[in-house]
Amino acid sequence: MKQIHVGLLGCGTVGTGVARLLINNRDLLRARVGADLNLKRVADIDTETDRGVAFDPGVLVSDAGQVLNDPEIQIVVEMIGGEGIAKEFIHQAIQKGKHVVTANKALLAGKGNELIRAARKAGVELAYEASVGGCMPIIKTLRESLVGNRIHAMTGILNGTCNYILTKITDEGSAFESALAEAQAEGFAEADPTLDVEGYDTAHKLAIINALAYGMEINLSDIYVEGITGITPEDIDFAREFRYKVKLLAIGKDKGDRVEARVHPTMIRDSNPLFNVGENLNAVTISADAVGEMMLYGYGAGMMPTGSAVVGDIVDIARNILTGAGSRLPLLSYQPDAIRKIPVMPVEEIETNYYFRFAAADRPGVLSTIAGILGKFGISIASVHQKGRKIDGAVPIVMLTHRAREADVNKALAEINGLEAVSETPVLIRIEDENSD
Amino acid sequence: MKQIHVGLLGCGTVGTGVARLLINNRDLLRARVGADLNLKRVADIDTETDRGVAFDPGVLVSDAGQVLNDPEIQIVVEMIGGEGIAKEFIHQAIQKGKHVVTANKALLAGKGNELIRAARKAGVELAYEASVGGCMPIIKTLRESLVGNRIHAMTGILNGTCNYILTKITDEGSAFESALAEAQAEGFAEADPTLDVEGYDTAHKLAIINALAYGMEINLSDIYVEGITGITPEDIDFAREFRYKVKLLAIGKDKGDRVEARVHPTMIRDSNPLFNVGENLNAVTISADAVGEMMLYGYGAGMMPTGSAVVGDIVDIARNILTGAGSRLPLLSYQPDAIRKIPVMPVEEIETNYYFRFAAADRPGVLSTIAGILGKFGISIASVHQKGRKIDGAVPIVMLTHRAREADVNKALAEINGLEAVSETPVLIRIEDENSD
Repeated sequence: MKQIHVGLLGCGTVGTGVARLLINNRDLLRARVGADLNLKRVADIDTETDRGVAFDPGVLVSDAGQVLNDPEIQIVVEMIGGEGIAKEFIHQAIQKGKHVVTANKALLAGKGNELIRAARKAGVELAYEASVGGCMPIIKTLRESLVGNRIHAMTGILNGTCNYILTKITDEGSAFESALAEAQAEGFAEADPTLDVEGYDTAHKLAIINALAYGMEINLSDIYVEGITGITPEDIDFAREFRYKVKLLAIGKDKGDRVEARVHPTMIRDSNPLFNVGENLNAVTISADAVGEMMLYGYGAGMMPTGSAVVGDIVDIARNILTGAGSRLPLLSYQPDAIRKIPVMPVEEIETNYYFRFAAADRPGVLSTIAGILGKFGISIASVHQKGRKIDGAVPIVMLTHRAREADVNKALAEINGLEAVSETPVLIRIEDENSD
Repeated sequence: MKQIHVGLLGCGTVGTGVARLLINNRDLLRARVGADLNLKRVADIDTETDRGVAFDPGVLVSDAGQVLNDPEIQIVVEMIGGEGIAKEFIHQAIQKGKHVVTANKALLAGKGNELIRAARKAGVELAYEASVGGCMPIIKTLRESLVGNRIHAMTGILNGTCNYILTKITDEGSAFESALAEAQAEGFAEADPTLDVEGYDTAHKLAIINALAYGMEINLSDIYVEGITGITPEDIDFAREFRYKVKLLAIGKDKGDRVEARVHPTMIRDSNPLFNVGENLNAVTISADAVGEMMLYGYGAGMMPTGSAVVGDIVDIARNILTGAGSRLPLLSYQPDAIRKIPVMPVEEIETNYYFRFAAADRPGVLSTIAGILGKFGISIASVHQKGRKIDGAVPIVMLTHRAREADVNKALAEINGLEAVSETPVLIRIEDENSD
């Protein structure tokens, strides 16, 4: 039986998952692939910790060079993460003609175009299914299954930490801080949760799938990003009354000669299949001309789900090696000469429905003043709810709008914020539903 | 630019969808595939009907030979359906060294092993993503994305007609017959709905995915099949009170040296991601060692969703042709020599939770007699609900059980059915939840 040698750089959580699958399911992989995938070497600065994996002697080493310089190793799996040494090692592997598998979304979102050019030039694979949505086969679905479809829109819950926190606030009325502390205790959130809760991790993933769906270069810097740190139980309670939940969504839409690319807390209705995606689960809906709407759902992070996606990539490459298929798929879904620089629509130009909450003085005329300002900017109100009465004289006024333009919304809210009767900065949450795209 | 010629046999609903995608999205496919997919010839006995597709002159012909005997055509798409001439044409295409794409689940479930052997021998592809779950990439997910996973269980809503009917009964209290009539009026159900409502279509699909997941030959005949014609609004109402819905599920489970393979109406809890899959939508959950639980969701039938899956297969084959990859994937997910005949567990031996409804005389002692019989056969009752009082003296008694063995259940129900106080054959619906597998 033919053997294909794999080298692993970095044996942290996901790296350990990959090692575990390659070793524990080695017979299963043989039965399916028809070749033996041999995890020949694993390089990590920590060679002491017991990872619960039965490495053969000499497999676990501290020197990455023993992976990168081994001529037998044809597939290098980069599981270090971050944008520093990981990038350097990937470049080295590519230069040495090795195929690369990575789950490094931050690196791909930031430097993916450069890495893809290098891999293309060297005629090697750069596989990254595990970079978006963990075990959900979103890359494969976009690049292969939906190849005959014109993609119209994607909306995704792509960060398990944020989804866990929002689920806690929604189901248990927790405040953001205590929900975050729980997520950290459960191991779903990092000690420094900034990348997650500020929405950047979700933006990394959106940058990747937008490129695949629409045939554009990876463009992280133009994505509008807003995290979930400002979401209060109060707004989530109001959302519930309108049959909405608040989710941190990645939204990528085809708008003809531009795309939308934005990450922000979003209200979705119970008719949206993402509505019931709770806990630390991920899901992504894809609207396309042939399939209508479809959804993938699963664990978007973690040792084994992400490890599963990495092993899927390793096998794809192994099958190309075994059949001499070379680079069978274009690395970014479109052929290199068909990839364009498609501008991202500035968030000021998007049109959607909005939820506003104002803290207003409880006296006659305030509501009509606010409504008048919204009307002046062409923002049409779908419903108004004035909730309870507070002792200090401020009451929450909640409004849902019809479709409006963000630039007009910004102007109106600025003017409303300047009213003497309005005591707090107005809250704005965008709504995604049937008639908002 | 290289050109790959495709021939289509049968231009009914799905065939038309395939033609439409290949023609209307031809430029998009070029940009992604890097080659031109030319729908060179379409054979259908009806060459008159306007299908809303702009065929070039000479493309639409009535003679299948013009597809099968054209040496330029490398990929033949069989969209005729059924087990007669479709099988004959597929064999002819294979003998002529052409790759075949089909959505014909009845044929694959019944004769798939034979067709796969023929394709393997001839060294051609036999692709069938569209045979299960329409646009959901279930075949690709099992065969590629989850290649590193040991699959434990799959549960699927795989027939849109049944799901539409059950949704109507659930949401609107319709009787089965009127829900079926509505499905027919909406175009979701055939004039002869037997294949759908009796569960056979779902069984065809389960036979295919069980083979892929567990490395066994396709085995349709041992699948236990029960349709939805006996489902009443009354049982669905009781289900609701226990937070269950009734869905027609395909259930395929790994049980060590055997598999479960069964299709029947099943109660699922609102915590199950299939719970909210309504209307004519399909979904399948997959439990596996690495990914935990994941789900695919989308339209499982119809011109364009199914057409999308067929085009995905065409492109996969085209990419193999372009790169000389040959048969890159084993046709049944496992290598031929690793495929076993795994016995299907007889339904009498499954263990699950049950819902029973008895029509019992409204007099003292009946409930305790029934409970006593269940206890005698080792069936432990989780809850009992005696609902209202009816004028003719019979009242419904509803019971949910803990995990029990089907053989014991059958014996107990037979004895209960023999009681003078029980006026109708007891109703049994299996329950699928966290502790039933």
